[in-house]
Amino acid sequence: MKDKIVLIIGAGPGLGSSLAQKFSQSGYHVFASRRERNKKDLQNLAKGINKKGFKCTPYPMDARNEVEIQELFKTAAKQGKIECVIFNIGANVFFPISKTTSRVFKKVWEMATFAGFLTGKEAAKYMLKNKKGTIIFTGATASMRGSSGFSAFASAKFGLRAVAQSMARELGPKGIHVAHTVIDGAIDHPWIKENFPDIYKLKKKDGILKPDEIAQVYLDLHHQKKSVWTHEIDLRPYMEKF
Amino acid sequence: MKDKIVLIIGAGPGLGSSLAQKFSQSGYHVFASRRERNKKDLQNLAKGINKKGFKCTPYPMDARNEVEIQELFKTAAKQGKIECVIFNIGANVFFPISKTTSRVFKKVWEMATFAGFLTGKEAAKYMLKNKKGTIIFTGATASMRGSSGFSAFASAKFGLRAVAQSMARELGPKGIHVAHTVIDGAIDHPWIKENFPDIYKLKKKDGILKPDEIAQVYLDLHHQKKSVWTHEIDLRPYMEKF
Amino acid sequence: MKDKIVLIIGAGPGLGSSLAQKFSQSGYHVFASRRERNKKDLQNLAKGINKKGFKCTPYPMDARNEVEIQELFKTAAKQGKIECVIFNIGANVFFPISKTTSRVFKKVWEMATFAGFLTGKEAAKYMLKNKKGTIIFTGATASMRGSSGFSAFASAKFGLRAVAQSMARELGPKGIHVAHTVIDGAIDHPWIKENFPDIYKLKKKDGILKPDEIAQVYLDLHHQKKSVWTHEIDLRPYMEKF
Amino acid sequence: MKDKIVLIIGAGPGLGSSLAQKFSQSGYHVFASRRERNKKDLQNLAKGINKKGFKCTPYPMDARNEVEIQELFKTAAKQGKIECVIFNIGANVFFPISKTTSRVFKKVWEMATFAGFLTGKEAAKYMLKNKKGTIIFTGATASMRGSSGFSAFASAKFGLRAVAQSMARELGPKGIHVAHTVIDGAIDHPWIKENFPDIYKLKKKDGILKPDEIAQVYLDLHHQKKSVWTHEIDLRPYMEKF
Repeated sequence: MKDKIVLIIGAGPGLGSSLAQKFSQSGYHVFASRRERNKKDLQNLAKGINKKGFKCTPYPMDARNEVEIQELFKTAAKQGKIECVIFNIGANVFFPISKTTSRVFKKVWEMATFAGFLTGKEAAKYMLKNKKGTIIFTGATASMRGSSGFSAFASAKFGLRAVAQSMARELGPKGIHVAHTVIDGAIDHPWIKENFPDIYKLKKKDGILKPDEIAQVYLDLHHQKKSVWTHEIDLRPYMEKF
Repeated sequence: MKDKIVLIIGAGPGLGSSLAQKFSQSGYHVFASRRERNKKDLQNLAKGINKKGFKCTPYPMDARNEVEIQELFKTAAKQGKIECVIFNIGANVFFPISKTTSRVFKKVWEMATFAGFLTGKEAAKYMLKNKKGTIIFTGATASMRGSSGFSAFASAKFGLRAVAQSMARELGPKGIHVAHTVIDGAIDHPWIKENFPDIYKLKKKDGILKPDEIAQVYLDLHHQKKSVWTHEIDLRPYMEKF
Repeated sequence: MKDKIVLIIGAGPGLGSSLAQKFSQSGYHVFASRRERNKKDLQNLAKGINKKGFKCTPYPMDARNEVEIQELFKTAAKQGKIECVIFNIGANVFFPISKTTSRVFKKVWEMATFAGFLTGKEAAKYMLKNKKGTIIFTGATASMRGSSGFSAFASAKFGLRAVAQSMARELGPKGIHVAHTVIDGAIDHPWIKENFPDIYKLKKKDGILKPDEIAQVYLDLHHQKKSVWTHEIDLRPYMEKF
Repeated sequence: MKDKIVLIIGAGPGLGSSLAQKFSQSGYHVFASRRERNKKDLQNLAKGINKKGFKCTPYPMDARNEVEIQELFKTAAKQGKIECVIFNIGANVFFPISKTTSRVFKKVWEMATFAGFLTGKEAAKYMLKNKKGTIIFTGATASMRGSSGFSAFASAKFGLRAVAQSMARELGPKGIHVAHTVIDGAIDHPWIKENFPDIYKLKKKDGILKPDEIAQVYLDLHHQKKSVWTHEIDLRPYMEKF
């Protein structure tokens, strides 16, 4: 039996989980991936989805590792056709340039850019065979402009956006839809709640992004007909300055 | 009785008509506007929609005329709440700089920028009272870059984009959603068929934009929750160079 | 006798005057233009320059009037070869959208965009004959992004930038250098002194732009060899947020 | 005795050498750096400069190595004040996504982005003490848009641009001038001559960038007064499409 497969690389709480729920509820078999150390959460996410009768396979791995990425695709492809791949790993850090260690700079790049490249490349391999498929990269405010304190994060997000653009221009004519979202604002996420309680309070006024709503946009992007494709879309709360 | 009103300024064949159909079929009372000289086509569009049991009021007028714009809004507001306003007037011309007359330069601006400003301003007036509403401006490739032969058109489209951006930043925090679409490619439209038959042939390969698909994106934009608003989105056929 | 001619459209106090001085001191015969109502100031500017042994012809006119623009070029061309044309008319206004009258919106466009188009077009006519020449358009922060309260000004400046881009792409390969500057910050100018005294105080800390320094950049742009041309350059005080 | 020091990271033939010559001839003591394997060429460059009575110290090293970068700065600082640092390492590669190995992707990033970050960070450390200095990053067409075949190179150049922007916004108000150039076209360089003979032929028509002219722009950037700083400037031959 052949499923319609969606891979989510970076299926953390917040957007990642919403994506897993949204796509599985729409009939896709979702492979949800996070790092080994979050295995428990990942399994709970999958369990919740499967309990409702939808299909989610938890797949812990390190997306910076090419072999592990390849394994994920190989495993998923056995279950059906890989229709959509979402790269959703964030790595937001804030340091003045003098405090940005080379270790941090490299790590942020490995997570936010290099893993994105590995994911995109592997997705292209499978989709080119099918002459079809959607690859979505999650971007941020820092994808569009560098700001004081964001040399590491902006550098990584700019780099990911370049991968998305380059792939879109190469693969679009071959039937692969490559999109890049610009999430401009805080997402409703436990990490925001803990670390930025003042921002989190804006939730009452719809001032932070609801992950379910973002997930709907991703699903819509995947369902766009090939005569009307979006490459880039921004998303922000109505009250966000930009 | 109170309708939910949508105004479409520039309801020509192609995208304008698709928008009128899409929004009316979604329960909105559409006011469709074009110039007096296209009155017949406009009435036929409305007739077709109304025959199916949906609601469309044809409203011929000149969008470059502030008084006529104001009249349209006044008339529409009597029927209900103005929820969405779409400015969709194109004015694509191509001339080398030496052949671009000041008359053409001005006229293109009046149609594509000034009329857009008048529309946006009037829409804001009504929507600010309701603290709610969506204003969508249709942009083009030329909204993003000037090209040889496009000084008039690009200048007008850049100008419209600036209106959209300025209004978004002013009105977003007040609950008004202002969006700008970048339509990058030829739309399936009688004008393309007649003037660019070679491009039109790409239709068979999904190489030109389907207006119904674009209209769906506009409807989705209007329905976005206020915690997740898009300001700018591009749309192009998969095979379009960009 | 044949002079090397430079035209400055918008030779007000601040940048315009500095440009007239800088270029005349570099051996150019400057035609400095402003509106009739500023004739006195214009004549004083020219007098000051001529007294030092340099060459400046005051030329009062309305740059929104195509015939007057054409007359200026015709008059100047009699004195020599038109080598550089600078369009430097500003029209900075600030109004929320509801207070932006259609009259203001149109006027700002006529001054900042339409006059720029007329100037650029006429410059191209003369320079194409010589297969040589430089056209520089003065842009601003609002050329790059629309902001709350700037729908009129940003729309006009976006429109001017599109003219510059389109002309650059058309005329560059024909030997005409078209450049666009982005002046991002307040220029040392009587108008700033009077209307924004707090900003003017930053002058002591080098926090506002010195017009002589900007003028030097324009001169450098004009002198760039054709193998190394700049189309766009930004300029701002070190302490300006951007 | 105290020299005015300029560091050039990436002092290869082409722009790097021109920079070394231009700055040394303008009175700076240039530290020119390339990888160990190009030591011979580097020494010849320095010898040529020193023979003419100017000052150039060859400094072979690997800019991807933080310790070596730190050593370079320490060594240079002993000779005087580090006034200007130029990061000029290129890493142009072209591969379709399927042929872009993870090794190449990483290496290009290490050379074009990571080394730039290390250089910028170290430069900031010294310049913040002096509350003065200029840091210039060399960008390319691929800094501005991703293209088919350029996922590795564009990703790295986007990433470098983000570093430049972030540093400019952080350090500008502290007196450090951070600039980013966009070199859009082929530079007159042995590598172009050998690998792209057709492009090289354009040299006769001024169709490729002269490194000496670019170097002059860098010198001008360094000499800009702090009230009029450029962050980004593009440079291309008049006949280059853009």
